[in-house]
Amino acid sequence: MTERTTAPNPTAAMLVIGDEILSGRTRDSNMHHLARELTLRGIELRESRVVSDDHEAIIGAVRALSAAHDHVFTSGGIGPTHDDITAEAVAEAMGAPIGIRDDARGILAAHYAARGVELNAARLRMARIPEGAELIDNPVSAAPGFSLRNVHVMAGVPRIFEAMLAGLLPKIPGGRPVLSQSFRIERGEGDVAEPLADLAKAHPTLAIGSYPFSENGVTGTNIVIRGADGAEIEAALVALSEQFPA
Amino acid sequence: MTERTTAPNPTAAMLVIGDEILSGRTRDSNMHHLARELTLRGIELRESRVVSDDHEAIIGAVRALSAAHDHVFTSGGIGPTHDDITAEAVAEAMGAPIGIRDDARGILAAHYAARGVELNAARLRMARIPEGAELIDNPVSAAPGFSLRNVHVMAGVPRIFEAMLAGLLPKIPGGRPVLSQSFRIERGEGDVAEPLADLAKAHPTLAIGSYPFSENGVTGTNIVIRGADGAEIEAALVALSEQFPA
Repeated sequence: MTERTTAPNPTAAMLVIGDEILSGRTRDSNMHHLARELTLRGIELRESRVVSDDHEAIIGAVRALSAAHDHVFTSGGIGPTHDDITAEAVAEAMGAPIGIRDDARGILAAHYAARGVELNAARLRMARIPEGAELIDNPVSAAPGFSLRNVHVMAGVPRIFEAMLAGLLPKIPGGRPVLSQSFRIERGEGDVAEPLADLAKAHPTLAIGSYPFSENGVTGTNIVIRGADGAEIEAALVALSEQFPA
Repeated sequence: MTERTTAPNPTAAMLVIGDEILSGRTRDSNMHHLARELTLRGIELRESRVVSDDHEAIIGAVRALSAAHDHVFTSGGIGPTHDDITAEAVAEAMGAPIGIRDDARGILAAHYAARGVELNAARLRMARIPEGAELIDNPVSAAPGFSLRNVHVMAGVPRIFEAMLAGLLPKIPGGRPVLSQSFRIERGEGDVAEPLADLAKAHPTLAIGSYPFSENGVTGTNIVIRGADGAEIEAALVALSEQFPA
């Protein structure tokens, strides 16, 4: 029998960079994608932030989040245009020098040469990578992301973000998978709140959430029980179903 | 002729509270809705955060955001269950006492009496409102939100959040509406980056964003020019269209 590890799961934060999200022009989807991927791997996403394309705002968020969590995942602001300032801001936040790096330049040069496209000064900006960072592969459009210590810098375009993340995550140690069970009760939250509070007290290692719904004239509450110990989740679920038989 | 005001637009931050967002179980939609509504009113959404149902995390975020911005809008965690801890955390963050308030209790009592539902201890928790706060009307399910100084506390269920916000926003002074024009260029970002950087330098009061797209085999860049001065946006647009004729 494997001894149960008591090490806590790794924690993470997300930092989305982009005026277009804060103005409401674009709807972010990277955070939701990251949340699901991390949960599957037992990495706890504890916090997410969206900041604008502002040098000081990015620096402040990177410093706060990288100090507080095991990993920070960023999306947005690493393209060739003047409003793409994430790489410089992350480098400054982490105290690393930044410049055009030969490995990144080589990737871009090969990519554009194969397509007969000039590697001009703007495109070459995408080879600006902080010293000491590891490149993150971009199988969609070549320009790499990077991991600088615990900060993982990726593109904002969802299919590029998702492709970069798919390559990155297997390199990051996960934790115990967080297990989850749902239970549907056709009673309002006000009716289930007291039994639920007692249940939460009896199972302090479980996270018990309550989410009201109203559909087709039926008002009810979805209960979600989350934790690392499947047997304890099962016990809580049995107790709940005895109090609220279907 | 009206003199142009030089007062900067009010700034705002969003705070989404909920484990279900960070675990990826639920996808937040309130931030995107708020972003659009604020932009229409000339209030600048500068930052958004998502934190878990954790007392200290909520307090830390409320303090940081309410000190840095004119307004903070929160969503989530004001229902009757044990995991609804937003009201207490906001009260503590702002140094206000909290308890059951008669005005909120009266609203709940009338709502449940009309439906023959008991106002039990759990439901009564929704009448816990900080001293000095103003109630925010909830036309969907009665239980009110509240504004405590510059922090506006609302429900997480999207149709309740949206209804509360619709009642709240007319009471908050707006700013000059932010105007916006888009321009589509069927060239990659790497080709438009240099002219765009020059354009941004020539119009420092405008925010010029660049968003790559790839659809039906066409790769291109959408340019979004935002600002308060319609004539200046127009001038930038003309300069851009001369460089990139359709």
